[in-house]
Amino acid sequence: MVSSQVVNTYPLSSYTFGTKEPKMEKDTSVADRLARMKVNYMKEGMRTSVEGILLVQEHNHPHILLLQIGNTFCKLPGGRLKPGENENEGLKRKLTSKLGANSPALVPDWQIGECVAIWWRPNFETIMYPYCPPHITKPKECKKLFLVHLSEREYFAVPKNLKLLAVPLFELYDNVQRYGPVISTIPQQLSRFQFKMITN
Amino acid sequence: MVSSQVVNTYPLSSYTFGTKEPKMEKDTSVADRLARMKVNYMKEGMRTSVEGILLVQEHNHPHILLLQIGNTFCKLPGGRLKPGENENEGLKRKLTSKLGANSPALVPDWQIGECVAIWWRPNFETIMYPYCPPHITKPKECKKLFLVHLSEREYFAVPKNLKLLAVPLFELYDNVQRYGPVISTIPQQLSRFQFKMITN
Repeated sequence: MVSSQVVNTYPLSSYTFGTKEPKMEKDTSVADRLARMKVNYMKEGMRTSVEGILLVQEHNHPHILLLQIGNTFCKLPGGRLKPGENENEGLKRKLTSKLGANSPALVPDWQIGECVAIWWRPNFETIMYPYCPPHITKPKECKKLFLVHLSEREYFAVPKNLKLLAVPLFELYDNVQRYGPVISTIPQQLSRFQFKMITN
Repeated sequence: MVSSQVVNTYPLSSYTFGTKEPKMEKDTSVADRLARMKVNYMKEGMRTSVEGILLVQEHNHPHILLLQIGNTFCKLPGGRLKPGENENEGLKRKLTSKLGANSPALVPDWQIGECVAIWWRPNFETIMYPYCPPHITKPKECKKLFLVHLSEREYFAVPKNLKLLAVPLFELYDNVQRYGPVISTIPQQLSRFQFKMITN
């Protein structure tokens, strides 16, 4: 029986944050995004995306690092795998692209941990489900969320057009209006872990 | 990296359901329940409860077994641990009390699996959170949900005052009004598993 698992979390103050060149969104609207998704599906089949849950602590409570675009929209660092790409390697590549310094020596040695959630997109629409709905034989996207175990010290380079926020679990919980169904239920998906708050 | 885990599920029709003597609720109102909780806390400290997620399949989609009391209220089989009782043994005891036949030979050999969620009750109130809220040093209850791996054939004896329902994940999802915050987010907590639907 696996009854709980300990995850070390370090204070936000142990991490260093710099900036780098902007990473623009590929689409300027939801409609554009869904249209591009459709074109890619015709070429490559089901899209698989991977996202990382990076945990820090403040005031003895776990916080998740989210990238904010503009004033409201938040997302987890991650992105789409290349056809045939390994999930682990693909997530490392995406984390480096989103948060790694341009100098390779400063890029964190990403430790990809447990898969904590899998979401399915049945149609070329925004709605996703935490299961593949019955009668859907050709889902359009599968999105997997992984814990990323951070070391005690890291340097993150944040694209200049984005903000990196440390958002507490209690802010995410039951807040689907602000964070959407995927991010707002991360607290429930992490509840089985025991967070060991390490202070320096 | 643990990227997914396979869970075998068998058709609802492989299981046999009988009845047994009623198991009455200890409390007749929420207020009574919270009052009893307070008395027990004074005597024994934080309450730990354990509940089982028993999965079956119908129409190629996972369903969860829920006990219905009266016409609306649903709960997972499980209950409170005795002081010092092991979680695994305590959950087996509670599953047998709720769903096991009176004849020991017919009681399932409960296989307790992964802890999928932990909920905390900070005060003698109905609200629970999937984390221990900051500044709460003496939570009143910790509730743990475990997967229970069923064999291909089992006999369940349902107390005569209760109904046993097989509820599909798509009915639970996003249905906090009907099932409450704990049960309605089980689909998100199970999303990381791959359900292997075994048909006979």
